[in-house]
Amino acid sequence: MHRAIGVDVGGTKIAAGLVDEQGRVAATTRRDTPSTDPEKIEEAITDVVRELAVGEDVEAVGLAAAGLVDADRSTVLFAPNLAWRREPLRQAVEKRTGLPVVVENDANAAAWGESRFGAGRGEQYVVTITVGTGLGGGIVVDGRMYRGRNGVAAEFGHITVEEGGRRCGCGSRGCWERYASGTALVQEARELASVSPATAVRLLELAGGRPADIIGRHISQAAQEGDEAALECFAIVGSWLGHGMAGLAAAFDPGMFILGGGVSEAGEVLRRPTVRALEDRLTAANYRPPPRVELAELGQLAGIVGAADLSRRR
Amino acid sequence: MHRAIGVDVGGTKIAAGLVDEQGRVAATTRRDTPSTDPEKIEEAITDVVRELAVGEDVEAVGLAAAGLVDADRSTVLFAPNLAWRREPLRQAVEKRTGLPVVVENDANAAAWGESRFGAGRGEQYVVTITVGTGLGGGIVVDGRMYRGRNGVAAEFGHITVEEGGRRCGCGSRGCWERYASGTALVQEARELASVSPATAVRLLELAGGRPADIIGRHISQAAQEGDEAALECFAIVGSWLGHGMAGLAAAFDPGMFILGGGVSEAGEVLRRPTVRALEDRLTAANYRPPPRVELAELGQLAGIVGAADLSRRR
Amino acid sequence: MHRAIGVDVGGTKIAAGLVDEQGRVAATTRRDTPSTDPEKIEEAITDVVRELAVGEDVEAVGLAAAGLVDADRSTVLFAPNLAWRREPLRQAVEKRTGLPVVVENDANAAAWGESRFGAGRGEQYVVTITVGTGLGGGIVVDGRMYRGRNGVAAEFGHITVEEGGRRCGCGSRGCWERYASGTALVQEARELASVSPATAVRLLELAGGRPADIIGRHISQAAQEGDEAALECFAIVGSWLGHGMAGLAAAFDPGMFILGGGVSEAGEVLRRPTVRALEDRLTAANYRPPPRVELAELGQLAGIVGAADLSRRR
Amino acid sequence: MHRAIGVDVGGTKIAAGLVDEQGRVAATTRRDTPSTDPEKIEEAITDVVRELAVGEDVEAVGLAAAGLVDADRSTVLFAPNLAWRREPLRQAVEKRTGLPVVVENDANAAAWGESRFGAGRGEQYVVTITVGTGLGGGIVVDGRMYRGRNGVAAEFGHITVEEGGRRCGCGSRGCWERYASGTALVQEARELASVSPATAVRLLELAGGRPADIIGRHISQAAQEGDEAALECFAIVGSWLGHGMAGLAAAFDPGMFILGGGVSEAGEVLRRPTVRALEDRLTAANYRPPPRVELAELGQLAGIVGAADLSRRR
Repeated sequence: MHRAIGVDVGGTKIAAGLVDEQGRVAATTRRDTPSTDPEKIEEAITDVVRELAVGEDVEAVGLAAAGLVDADRSTVLFAPNLAWRREPLRQAVEKRTGLPVVVENDANAAAWGESRFGAGRGEQYVVTITVGTGLGGGIVVDGRMYRGRNGVAAEFGHITVEEGGRRCGCGSRGCWERYASGTALVQEARELASVSPATAVRLLELAGGRPADIIGRHISQAAQEGDEAALECFAIVGSWLGHGMAGLAAAFDPGMFILGGGVSEAGEVLRRPTVRALEDRLTAANYRPPPRVELAELGQLAGIVGAADLSRRR
Repeated sequence: MHRAIGVDVGGTKIAAGLVDEQGRVAATTRRDTPSTDPEKIEEAITDVVRELAVGEDVEAVGLAAAGLVDADRSTVLFAPNLAWRREPLRQAVEKRTGLPVVVENDANAAAWGESRFGAGRGEQYVVTITVGTGLGGGIVVDGRMYRGRNGVAAEFGHITVEEGGRRCGCGSRGCWERYASGTALVQEARELASVSPATAVRLLELAGGRPADIIGRHISQAAQEGDEAALECFAIVGSWLGHGMAGLAAAFDPGMFILGGGVSEAGEVLRRPTVRALEDRLTAANYRPPPRVELAELGQLAGIVGAADLSRRR
Repeated sequence: MHRAIGVDVGGTKIAAGLVDEQGRVAATTRRDTPSTDPEKIEEAITDVVRELAVGEDVEAVGLAAAGLVDADRSTVLFAPNLAWRREPLRQAVEKRTGLPVVVENDANAAAWGESRFGAGRGEQYVVTITVGTGLGGGIVVDGRMYRGRNGVAAEFGHITVEEGGRRCGCGSRGCWERYASGTALVQEARELASVSPATAVRLLELAGGRPADIIGRHISQAAQEGDEAALECFAIVGSWLGHGMAGLAAAFDPGMFILGGGVSEAGEVLRRPTVRALEDRLTAANYRPPPRVELAELGQLAGIVGAADLSRRR
Repeated sequence: MHRAIGVDVGGTKIAAGLVDEQGRVAATTRRDTPSTDPEKIEEAITDVVRELAVGEDVEAVGLAAAGLVDADRSTVLFAPNLAWRREPLRQAVEKRTGLPVVVENDANAAAWGESRFGAGRGEQYVVTITVGTGLGGGIVVDGRMYRGRNGVAAEFGHITVEEGGRRCGCGSRGCWERYASGTALVQEARELASVSPATAVRLLELAGGRPADIIGRHISQAAQEGDEAALECFAIVGSWLGHGMAGLAAAFDPGMFILGGGVSEAGEVLRRPTVRALEDRLTAANYRPPPRVELAELGQLAGIVGAADLSRRR
């Protein structure tokens, strides 16, 4: 049976899996990302590929990289946490492994995995929103990954949603990911705990008393317990998510949004306010069903599964 | 030679043309839109088709309708100025004319015309922005019209660009077309003339003295003369256009934007501030060329040409 | 019995009254404002003073001018509609009439009239908000007119309430009077009628069909009839009024706001949303009674009565 | 020589001084604030008064309390950090010390001290802005403290400056002190360091690497060294300060603003952008000199000196 290997290359971890044609993961392995030296990273990638390939008939390797990838799916144009600039990753890894390689942006790879084998099965027009530290995404239409003219489509996180709003690392202000991301969730909670400690008692308790020590896990836990303050933080972030999705729905008219990434693991406490805000602002709402909003199903394997599968489509 | 007929069905005029396979218009005709009675409109459409078809080997008819069109390109879901709701236009016109018919949203049709035969020739990823009374658009990728799950993609005008901003007819606030359209241009000019008559002397002169009587034509004329106030109005609208385009560029990564619609006839006074604002806010600007922004070339024929050509692709 | 004459000098009318020590008006007269030639205006002022003074023992003359007045209450620093710049009005009118003269800003004069003889009787800390074409006001504390270091206090209309908001004739953006004034009321109504004609049927009917022809009178009339669209316009303006007042309450801690000027004649349809917004945002609300908000009682005579009374306090 | 004692009662420290009629401080003493038990605090106040009064002919005691004080200058209505609600402080301390007591809000007391003996000497219309953790202020006109109808005037910190803006502990959003205070300064710096670590190298260095550990002292130090990131933080806060002052200038027309409180100790790096923003938005700027903006001169003694002096004016 032909299998492919997907490798998720992040700033701290390199995680890989052996994936069959139905998107099932037969084996996985991982390494710490070895500093930011491109060669050392290529070595580590080669290492996990070799480990998984032992005794297997591996067809190809898909690399999901946390950065911008060119239209040829060969070069990482820019990867902030890996210190890569125009890194010819495909060529390097093909040479080392002797296998055909495809490079893909990690959010795209995860979107592909979810669309083919996860929450998006059976839906033709899928926009995935990956909510982690920042906000990214991927567009899958008619069974094809939409990558844009230069390979950098679906960089949703830097769509402006608030003119003159919060400062963003990209140099602009008011970017969507400054309002709808794990970072934004934590910022809401810290601000709430700073200005109204009485309403944020549980959050402060979990954080040991200091607003600045509140982290995402505390907010998720408190929200699961039903804590009003934590739920309000999710409601605010969900509202920004849904409002941004309404803009994407006006542009793309998707049948479905998949809500992925670490923050989406909070589940309904995030999905519910997202749906409400999306439907509240949906254009042409009387003339189409609202796009469904579904939670991702593959968890942290989405990128591996998606990259492996994409590597078969060269 | 096989020809097709394109018909542009608007709230006041029905304009039609006989179009060859190279997008050339051999003949045109037009009628006033006869009230909002669907049957009368179908009759008028049939009438212009027959007139143009005399002695011609007509392959098909494409209807560009000012409204939402379903995914099958058969039914007009909603057309505010034609009073249509779920109008089965394809079937009705096929029956009357005996020709195969395709129905398309007018901004989509114009986008297709421009992409194939106008400013977008040779470019694979084209987003057209049509700036008229409101703001619409169309997406053409890889030689295909992107229509979305329900046929209502590219309704760009109702993407929110200013939270809690100007009231929109759609029931929301802060929609893009409230800031980037002919209506917005006029609103800027009237407001400027109201609060600073001294700086809007020329605009007031052209309008006969009353701010409320300033119309688009006055602003275009004054801008062509170099009037500062009129140029400022175009600069503001262009800035909103470019900022909105930056959002679309983050999502679609197009190679090109085409600026069409009546307001785009002002030319460089609109295009220049648009380009500046787009490039100022472009995501991943170091890793791709900025999308080109070009003025539409087919003028008012874009919809006819596009609809005719689309009718051949059934 | 000692009487004083108050003269209200506006851009279109000069209105005057003979006022006794209890603020009662024994006689009135008026002239059209004769162009913007300062001398002609002084003549007209002298004329109305002489007319009212016949057979009376007149103590002094108070001039309420639609402009900025210096700290000595002698010179009109700037009067946009009278084309005055540093006009020594006191001296000129004293010379012509032989009577002692005091010059006061018209909104201050009206505030004084209302505080002493109108809605503010018995209250020690009164802030009057005059809502007409623009927004002005006056501050009366402990039986004294608060005029500030240079005589230009209480220019409330140009406090910023919306960063980067509507353009103002003063050169800034987001000034309070662009949101809370007769002009703003009309702007709301016209915008509503433009974008949602169906909800603004009655307003459009009164205006003869064109949104641009809606004027304040139409909105007041429709609101009195209970028309939802007109009431919404007053609710929006009232909300901005109340929110601005909450800022003034944080700064001044007044016992009372008086709502005056032409727009306030709409009465409860304006006062109610104003009170709601003020109380909604009032600082220290648990530790003080909310300032009362009362409608002005003296109508168009407030300026005349106030100016006359102030002329006795030299 | 008649002396008075001023006591500054804060959430963590009780600081007192023996003050002569020229505002000179002859002796000082201090205690930690003993929990939030009102009686213990009264005891501590009594204690510092007795200590300073030994061998002195003390005329009266002025208490500057970090909270709202009623119009009679007797009762602390609300003091968030002292857990007081309608605390009859005057009566309690008079009984314990046998001396006449006046209670004043701490920002008012500091404003009085600065106006009489510090930066405001010789100026008749002074508005003091105290920029510490939050933002407070005081108004001194014609040699009198302006206290308002209920004693809670000059609560400037909760004037709305950004509709729908940052959440405030008062329950509203967009309050001035959320943008112009030590807390806001720190928030700007932390946000800058989070989203653009490369531009905030020095701030991160001083804080040991974690954005959340940046405190006010780091920003002040970096700014004094000329660090661009720190200067930008002060520029943003100064800009909000100046814009808010422009609103107060429209309302009060003061001759001078005094910039006090801990954050003002940064000096010119704060004052310069404040002045620029104030003058940029000043109403009636052509008809009055801009209000001067001066740094406070009495430092942390301002409240003690002011309270002592006010206690003589019963």
